[in-house]
Amino acid sequence: MKAHADKAKLNRLFPAMRELQELATKHGIDDIFQSNGGKILQVLILTGLKALKNLQGNDAVDDDGNEYELKSVNIGLRKNNFSTHHHINPTIIGKYRKVRWVFAVYKGIELQALYRMSAEQLEPYLGAWERKWHESGGKDINNPKIPLKFVMEHGTVIPHE
Amino acid sequence: MKAHADKAKLNRLFPAMRELQELATKHGIDDIFQSNGGKILQVLILTGLKALKNLQGNDAVDDDGNEYELKSVNIGLRKNNFSTHHHINPTIIGKYRKVRWVFAVYKGIELQALYRMSAEQLEPYLGAWERKWHESGGKDINNPKIPLKFVMEHGTVIPHE
Repeated sequence: MKAHADKAKLNRLFPAMRELQELATKHGIDDIFQSNGGKILQVLILTGLKALKNLQGNDAVDDDGNEYELKSVNIGLRKNNFSTHHHINPTIIGKYRKVRWVFAVYKGIELQALYRMSAEQLEPYLGAWERKWHESGGKDINNPKIPLKFVMEHGTVIPHE
Repeated sequence: MKAHADKAKLNRLFPAMRELQELATKHGIDDIFQSNGGKILQVLILTGLKALKNLQGNDAVDDDGNEYELKSVNIGLRKNNFSTHHHINPTIIGKYRKVRWVFAVYKGIELQALYRMSAEQLEPYLGAWERKWHESGGKDINNPKIPLKFVMEHGTVIPHE
């Protein structure tokens, strides 16, 4: 098998990838090339949040100990909604009410905008999911969405560069 | 929210990420930071293979039209086995018998070794899965593994760098 002529370009770029992975490892991200690793690194650095290891989901904490839920969307690739969780139930909703939220909007690998919201601001969704769960007799909700439009209207922009 | 002091370092590295994504897009990879995008790019460039779009899985093709299945393992993070498919059945096995195979061994983001194998060489596994499927009365097999040890013993090393 014969390498593509782009090998020289890849070799030139690879030292920067290594540096980015070192930076990511320092910030608690094992692999920049999986599960949006490189993007989560960027969000952590821009917000000053620290990744919480050993907890499910994209959880982070600020210097005062406040916990955050991080969500991202890649506009264009998907509908313009933030995914949540594949088994939403009162336990998860209870957790969601105790944290603050950061929403990152990407176009490919380029960050377009960063927003923060309080759990109170998300209550229209959290409350609706909770009611739906009880009304269904306790059936977990599969990945209900938070629309980007809602976040843009009610969230606070976090400045980035 | 206040950015981390590493922001300057991230900003310095980001132009290289952009260049890597441009290279990836040229090779048919939408997002280097998801689903091992950056690693698949590296494997495609080192092998000279082209990504096959619109087909399931990590499929690629060489200049002569031969199709390939690409597999990777991150040693250390997982057990040293290659994952295959969550619903192995005679249709998938039939497809596996028609292609060639490339196995990439990573440690974090660093490529350790690259091997190629023919479908005939993998027949001990393909045949065993097929028999198991029939013996179970047609129950799909959930992600049977191909051991790294088997690939190292029987595969042909593809030189890289």
